[in-house]
Amino acid sequence: MTSELAFIAALRRIATHPGARNLEDDCAVIDFGGEVLVLTHDMMAEGVHFLPGQDPADVAWKLVACNISDLAAKGAEPVGVLVGYTLGADDARFLAGLEEALAHYRAPLLGGDTISRRDGQVLGLTAIGRATHRPVPSRAGAKAGDRLYITGPVGAAMLGFEALQAGSGDSLAYRRPQALLDAGIALAPHVTAMMDVSDGLLLDASRLARASGVTLAVASAAVPIATAEGRRAEALRWGDDYQLLFTAPAGAELPLPVHAIGTALPAAAAPILLDGQPLGETDAIGYEHR
Amino acid sequence: MTSELAFIAALRRIATHPGARNLEDDCAVIDFGGEVLVLTHDMMAEGVHFLPGQDPADVAWKLVACNISDLAAKGAEPVGVLVGYTLGADDARFLAGLEEALAHYRAPLLGGDTISRRDGQVLGLTAIGRATHRPVPSRAGAKAGDRLYITGPVGAAMLGFEALQAGSGDSLAYRRPQALLDAGIALAPHVTAMMDVSDGLLLDASRLARASGVTLAVASAAVPIATAEGRRAEALRWGDDYQLLFTAPAGAELPLPVHAIGTALPAAAAPILLDGQPLGETDAIGYEHR
Repeated sequence: MTSELAFIAALRRIATHPGARNLEDDCAVIDFGGEVLVLTHDMMAEGVHFLPGQDPADVAWKLVACNISDLAAKGAEPVGVLVGYTLGADDARFLAGLEEALAHYRAPLLGGDTISRRDGQVLGLTAIGRATHRPVPSRAGAKAGDRLYITGPVGAAMLGFEALQAGSGDSLAYRRPQALLDAGIALAPHVTAMMDVSDGLLLDASRLARASGVTLAVASAAVPIATAEGRRAEALRWGDDYQLLFTAPAGAELPLPVHAIGTALPAAAAPILLDGQPLGETDAIGYEHR
Repeated sequence: MTSELAFIAALRRIATHPGARNLEDDCAVIDFGGEVLVLTHDMMAEGVHFLPGQDPADVAWKLVACNISDLAAKGAEPVGVLVGYTLGADDARFLAGLEEALAHYRAPLLGGDTISRRDGQVLGLTAIGRATHRPVPSRAGAKAGDRLYITGPVGAAMLGFEALQAGSGDSLAYRRPQALLDAGIALAPHVTAMMDVSDGLLLDASRLARASGVTLAVASAAVPIATAEGRRAEALRWGDDYQLLFTAPAGAELPLPVHAIGTALPAAAAPILLDGQPLGETDAIGYEHR
């Protein structure tokens, strides 16, 4: 077993709990007491998910935001987080970013563990949330006839990454992504399926389509992008923007301004039709965990 | 900030939630849905907490057991776990050990994250539990006059570690520690303070004493040991046995056979009196996270 996907598939076989959906980047959803607990755990490794030279405060922010974004896609509000931390070059900067992000997302620090080692840093964060609406939105609820929406533009993180690499320009969108907690909570009662866009719009949409057993017809021109028009195709494939992607019945009144970008159809061979063309499994459509 | 202890102290300053007690190896305890949620997160790194040559199934077992032991000390029953995994040399063996340990402790796998990287493995596990008794036992409840107890012998993991190093003899106690889940649940209604012994009896007892504001008088001869008498002093300082250490009022009827090993006294200068002698801060009394 040498790939993340193979390991995740093997994990799935031993995860028999009905709420065990957090095996890739989805959340676990379980009844606890009279409420619903939403749980997610994401790791970030130096040299893989962040670079040795990056500001540890930005790394901490992103670690929090990517987990809180998973809660947002469930319409969950944060209960708190546990942090797994490897001591690094500037622990005080990491703590400053952590404190700032946790305050921003109203997520108290509940605990965690700290280790020291010689190799690069590995960070983990467990976010614990409380569902604000039942049923809790999943990726699996889209029905043929539903409309597909996104909360805002994609491509901003791509530009931010390029600015960071170049050492000039505005890199904020990449360094300090925004998890759309309030939008997720507002949308949860209205959606049939929802997820956050972390690995690229087209790839994440194909996951939603497969989980729901539909094909999603996406109109690329309708997708809001943060880039020049010439880079639309890239923006649809870049991750890290953390917009919410969701379906709702045609004609549903939604509580905030969002962008209609497609329609759910009965399942065809390909999960995605992009401007009428089926996107094949082998097309490069986003960031795959290999 | 270059030490684990300094980082933990800094974390504590930003952890303002009243349930945030899981900053070293204790659990977070929070009200949720009319019940009490108990949460803990422990990390293990290759080369620090386990050796590159160790059987990954044993590593998985220990990762589960050390976290479940934290739940046991709270009298909590497992709700499930989230696993943070770095791909390694034999992922199938890790999974086999994980599945075995989770079945043993009735802890469903709820999810997690998987990453691949070149450096050594770093593993994390978040255990989620449900308190079976309120108030949930903490380290802070021992009162002068209480008796101090331990559930079983210390020193078995030390012998197991030596056997593993030597390549002969019985290493099971080190490789497959037992978290005392049933004992913790049975004891929770009877104790004034409780914790698991992970870093050494004397060190962990000193933590319980400080948290409770008492001094614990320990009678070393009364401590059950799994070693020859000549190694008693070492056995009292070795960790990884995961016995439960607790206090209860004098005369309390306890639901299982345990070992009385001392008494809680009003706080003196030293947190521990070992056979009447104060143990100083600088004495080597167990595994300190530096």
